[in-house]
Amino acid sequence: MSEAIGTGLLTATVVGSGMMAERLCGGNIALALLANTLATAAALVALILTFGPISGAHFNPVVTLASAWQRNLAWPDVPAYLFSQVAGAVSGVAVAQLMFGEALFSLSQHARKGGAQFFSEFIATFGLVTVILVCGRLRAQVTPFAVAAYIAAAYWFTASTSFANPAVTIGRALTNSFAGIRPVDVPAFVVAQFLGTIAATLLGGWLIQEQRK
Amino acid sequence: MSEAIGTGLLTATVVGSGMMAERLCGGNIALALLANTLATAAALVALILTFGPISGAHFNPVVTLASAWQRNLAWPDVPAYLFSQVAGAVSGVAVAQLMFGEALFSLSQHARKGGAQFFSEFIATFGLVTVILVCGRLRAQVTPFAVAAYIAAAYWFTASTSFANPAVTIGRALTNSFAGIRPVDVPAFVVAQFLGTIAATLLGGWLIQEQRK
Amino acid sequence: MSEAIGTGLLTATVVGSGMMAERLCGGNIALALLANTLATAAALVALILTFGPISGAHFNPVVTLASAWQRNLAWPDVPAYLFSQVAGAVSGVAVAQLMFGEALFSLSQHARKGGAQFFSEFIATFGLVTVILVCGRLRAQVTPFAVAAYIAAAYWFTASTSFANPAVTIGRALTNSFAGIRPVDVPAFVVAQFLGTIAATLLGGWLIQEQRK
Amino acid sequence: MSEAIGTGLLTATVVGSGMMAERLCGGNIALALLANTLATAAALVALILTFGPISGAHFNPVVTLASAWQRNLAWPDVPAYLFSQVAGAVSGVAVAQLMFGEALFSLSQHARKGGAQFFSEFIATFGLVTVILVCGRLRAQVTPFAVAAYIAAAYWFTASTSFANPAVTIGRALTNSFAGIRPVDVPAFVVAQFLGTIAATLLGGWLIQEQRK
Repeated sequence: MSEAIGTGLLTATVVGSGMMAERLCGGNIALALLANTLATAAALVALILTFGPISGAHFNPVVTLASAWQRNLAWPDVPAYLFSQVAGAVSGVAVAQLMFGEALFSLSQHARKGGAQFFSEFIATFGLVTVILVCGRLRAQVTPFAVAAYIAAAYWFTASTSFANPAVTIGRALTNSFAGIRPVDVPAFVVAQFLGTIAATLLGGWLIQEQRK
Repeated sequence: MSEAIGTGLLTATVVGSGMMAERLCGGNIALALLANTLATAAALVALILTFGPISGAHFNPVVTLASAWQRNLAWPDVPAYLFSQVAGAVSGVAVAQLMFGEALFSLSQHARKGGAQFFSEFIATFGLVTVILVCGRLRAQVTPFAVAAYIAAAYWFTASTSFANPAVTIGRALTNSFAGIRPVDVPAFVVAQFLGTIAATLLGGWLIQEQRK
Repeated sequence: MSEAIGTGLLTATVVGSGMMAERLCGGNIALALLANTLATAAALVALILTFGPISGAHFNPVVTLASAWQRNLAWPDVPAYLFSQVAGAVSGVAVAQLMFGEALFSLSQHARKGGAQFFSEFIATFGLVTVILVCGRLRAQVTPFAVAAYIAAAYWFTASTSFANPAVTIGRALTNSFAGIRPVDVPAFVVAQFLGTIAATLLGGWLIQEQRK
Repeated sequence: MSEAIGTGLLTATVVGSGMMAERLCGGNIALALLANTLATAAALVALILTFGPISGAHFNPVVTLASAWQRNLAWPDVPAYLFSQVAGAVSGVAVAQLMFGEALFSLSQHARKGGAQFFSEFIATFGLVTVILVCGRLRAQVTPFAVAAYIAAAYWFTASTSFANPAVTIGRALTNSFAGIRPVDVPAFVVAQFLGTIAATLLGGWLIQEQRK
């Protein structure tokens, strides 16, 4: 339940701050992305600090899957996590749409495709999962700050603005606003995110072992 | 007393940084809101860190009421808190007005109304009280950072720029500047804030119990 | 010695980032102040974290005087602190001027005067010293973050952009750039800063006693 | 290995966020540098928190050399560190170029030269190494935040935007974008960085001894 609320508030932040930025920035996309970045990173700090002690603050399916792979989470618990995350993300989009006086949902027409975008999502998710796995194991107390800082950086250093989250990606297909993504472009983003997760989980396990020696 | 000073400095920051932004930004409202956001979040970090150990850093009536409801504060102590908060907010507005060479008070003409604004204040306060209750119980040390980060996000992800505080809302009616709100629009904001608080307190109690299992 | 280096780097940041902002922002003063704010706050975090354990990270004469008044510092040690701070601030200005290819010093022609500015410096310094005294006593570990956050807020919520430091104010008279202040306007700023310090020290002592009960 | 990955992600952030800023900012260089600053500082927080416990998070040859000089690292281990850092930086540039659909490498044509730039790099690196040595010794837990904050400030208060890292400087010669530097200008930057390191190591050792008394 806390996963659904957390993912919902996170997605509402990503989408809502994009709408606010779009309305205020009048075509200054750099300023809009800056506001979007600060809001998202700040929400991550607040939400992971708040929900972390309750259930681990998994607002991202790839984190849940990586944890299960590393045997930090039982596989039978995974489906409930994934369902909560997707349901939360979709609800979060609806909340954002309502707050800004829009219809509950509106399919995005924002094209995000091509090899550079695919590679960006691979790198973005690779970095995110590396930070979460390694930092979560070796310095759990500061993980909320590390994750938020990573995403703030990744919004700018990747060409895709770093979605890096399959549940949020699905939600973002349902809003025709700044943060949206065309439904047809979602599958490639999700595939890239899973590939990045696999690479990071292999690397992370290896790095943690290196540290133990 | 520390509640009045803290709420006063917080309100002076919200109002004063809005005035500064208005003067420097020349119509670039996105940049003005960005500056307003950073100043407010920074003030929250400084003031909660400073006044928290003295009296809990309640700068917000809804936090006081939620604490009393959860039996973390005795009901007979509540009126003094509420009085300090409103007096502090009103004084803070006067300080900001004087610092910028304006009259002590000036009624706002900034209309903020309608269902989207009402729903935004509900969500904004719901999230704020959830963060304060859960984080304050389970990770008290980092609550100042969680609260500031939440408000930074909420300034952008809600359509109302997240007042989320009845005392500060009352104060903001007394300044005809960037951060102002028409006195006639205050009651609906306060009602939405109380409804958000009720929802968050019920949820927060339930989440903390879930964690204890 | 560490006081001189710290105050020097802090002043170089205030002045240098103002020069950089002036060159890049082309008249967008809001953006310039935003960059100036972030650079100053970030420098405070880095410098107080670094020099705090060595000698307390007093980069500000009013902090030294308030500490001596509260008997946390021996009065005979005060003059050396004050000398280091002023020498550091003046050197820091020279470093900034050289880094940007300017003459070692250039008297500022930036007028900053009048009652609103005076009251702003009073409030700015009052808040700063309150944060330092109370937070430094009750939560010393997080004081670097509280101070930096306070200054970030105060750059925007006061009409004077919050100098709040007599040594740095003197230094800033020696640069005819964004952060400068006319030498003739310095005395009023320093007087306002001392008055704010007196008010905060009286209040701070009272608040800490209140907490002890 | 973790040094190479960390330096790679750091360099990819510096270069990639510069490309993103260049594309979105349309000539508003102040806004571009602001985005570049936030991305770099955020990446430093995330990467040092993550890789610090594994191998010390040396993403910078001057840090490795200063550590060896202070006998915190064995000299025979130094070459492997330096190789990892340069290899990581070069790879990071390639990753950024690919994410933004550019050729693997492209020599920079961005001239950065002259005495003011040289002195800026000296000061930038002097400050960085002072922060790392002193803070790393006396308050290791918060070093990631101190380093990130210092770099955020130094991007703005130095005239060179503070490269302060020979490995990253070499990498930045290989991208003809916002963050680039002409190959011919690299040697002077590296010399200034080494001189700053020497000054800071001498000072740092002396300050730490002063503290011990």
